Amino acid sequence: MDAENSDHLVTLRALLRQFAADRNWEQFHTPRNLLLALVGEVGELAELFQWVSDEQAAVIMTDPDLGARIGEELADVFGYVVRLADILGIDLYAAVMAKVKLNAERYPVDLARGKATKYTELHD
Amino acid sequence: MDAENSDHLVTLRALLRQFAADRNWEQFHTPRNLLLALVGEVGELAELFQWVSDEQAAVIMTDPDLGARIGEELADVFGYVVRLADILGIDLYAAVMAKVKLNAERYPVDLARGKATKYTELHD
Amino acid sequence: MDAENSDHLVTLRALLRQFAADRNWEQFHTPRNLLLALVGEVGELAELFQWVSDEQAAVIMTDPDLGARIGEELADVFGYVVRLADILGIDLYAAVMAKVKLNAERYPVDLARGKATKYTELHD
Amino acid sequence: MDAENSDHLVTLRALLRQFAADRNWEQFHTPRNLLLALVGEVGELAELFQWVSDEQAAVIMTDPDLGARIGEELADVFGYVVRLADILGIDLYAAVMAKVKLNAERYPVDLARGKATKYTELHD
Repeated sequence: MDAENSDHLVTLRALLRQFAADRNWEQFHTPRNLLLALVGEVGELAELFQWVSDEQAAVIMTDPDLGARIGEELADVFGYVVRLADILGIDLYAAVMAKVKLNAERYPVDLARGKATKYTELHD
Repeated sequence: MDAENSDHLVTLRALLRQFAADRNWEQFHTPRNLLLALVGEVGELAELFQWVSDEQAAVIMTDPDLGARIGEELADVFGYVVRLADILGIDLYAAVMAKVKLNAERYPVDLARGKATKYTELHD
Repeated sequence: MDAENSDHLVTLRALLRQFAADRNWEQFHTPRNLLLALVGEVGELAELFQWVSDEQAAVIMTDPDLGARIGEELADVFGYVVRLADILGIDLYAAVMAKVKLNAERYPVDLARGKATKYTELHD
Repeated sequence: MDAENSDHLVTLRALLRQFAADRNWEQFHTPRNLLLALVGEVGELAELFQWVSDEQAAVIMTDPDLGARIGEELADVFGYVVRLADILGIDLYAAVMAKVKLNAERYPVDLARGKATKYTELHD
């Protein structure tokens, strides 16, 4: 089996690129358009959590209907992130790996353990 | 090479899960917390595009500094999407595949070509 | 005292319009720019609530520093809403009054009491 | 005429407070719930601008249907900002006045004229 084909991130990027190309939608997929579309999808996701308490949210996936809708909205959010990265020429995998490396320096395990403090206020 | 290991989506999910576990941050990674964190990161991405015209945005990645910052913010957005999916038990790859299948029905190639019309208004 | 001058909404709109004019910023205050700026400010507000539980959020304003930052971010959000309405020619007061009237029909008191159900699912 | 009654901001705050009280919705109007509701409405507004170019957006209000929908979404955004400020005990008018004063110092007319540069990079 080819490693490339087994990378779901590469598969999804290619799939979404083809989906847009088939419909001649590249003209709409500009950075700011995709960014606003991403904002719209994050908004739809937020609507599913807006009247739900923290306690209810902790078990929200046990509701099959709601769980399915959340999965769908999260897929939309994810899809626009992948598409936006693609047209900007950003390698998402490399970008996250680099950011995790940076965050590991910003949030050393012993300093950050159990604290939700921003790194700028952590090293005092 | 193991197929699992070559799937970057699986790798990133495991990495971010470990990052949180090492810092005892699972207590903070509730659905609504991660959702608000995602909103925060989308906001930071939006700030990089807010005073930029469509024309400037089309070539924004040619600016190395700005390009690096955009990559970093998009990585943050992506990371929270992966993390949110993880704690909700959503398989992002399967979710996007299902959504693309649904969208293929909603937006048939011949009907949707070259149009940015929502599917609810496309089949009239 | 003139009624016009005592309407804070009119005062703020005029003030923000003048602030932009003084700096020759009208060129930047296009609908999509202001919308993305609004998204950015909502993101900054979200960051102040992202690692806070519902219980902590209920008393968040008792922390003077945090309370001041929340007031500042909410002011930024509000300011961009007022500015966006201004350049679009939308009378915010009339728009909200019309929406409240519509919502009063969508959410009759006896049907909606104590329920966070969307109106589309309320009239079954 | 009473000055208080002619202040639309005060009128709207009272109206939205009464609307919630009549429906026993205060229980849902917590800071994080209203914040997520605000995110949802900003998302709906973004959807109306996502496939629209800057040029089309500049004349978007000439479309009566679209203009009406934009007014409605902006009213929703505005309403949640007013409601969020109300339950947090923030005086929006005072908050914006204070922020404008601060921004006047951050963006002196002679330095900021015609520039969309953030104040942190403006005073070099």
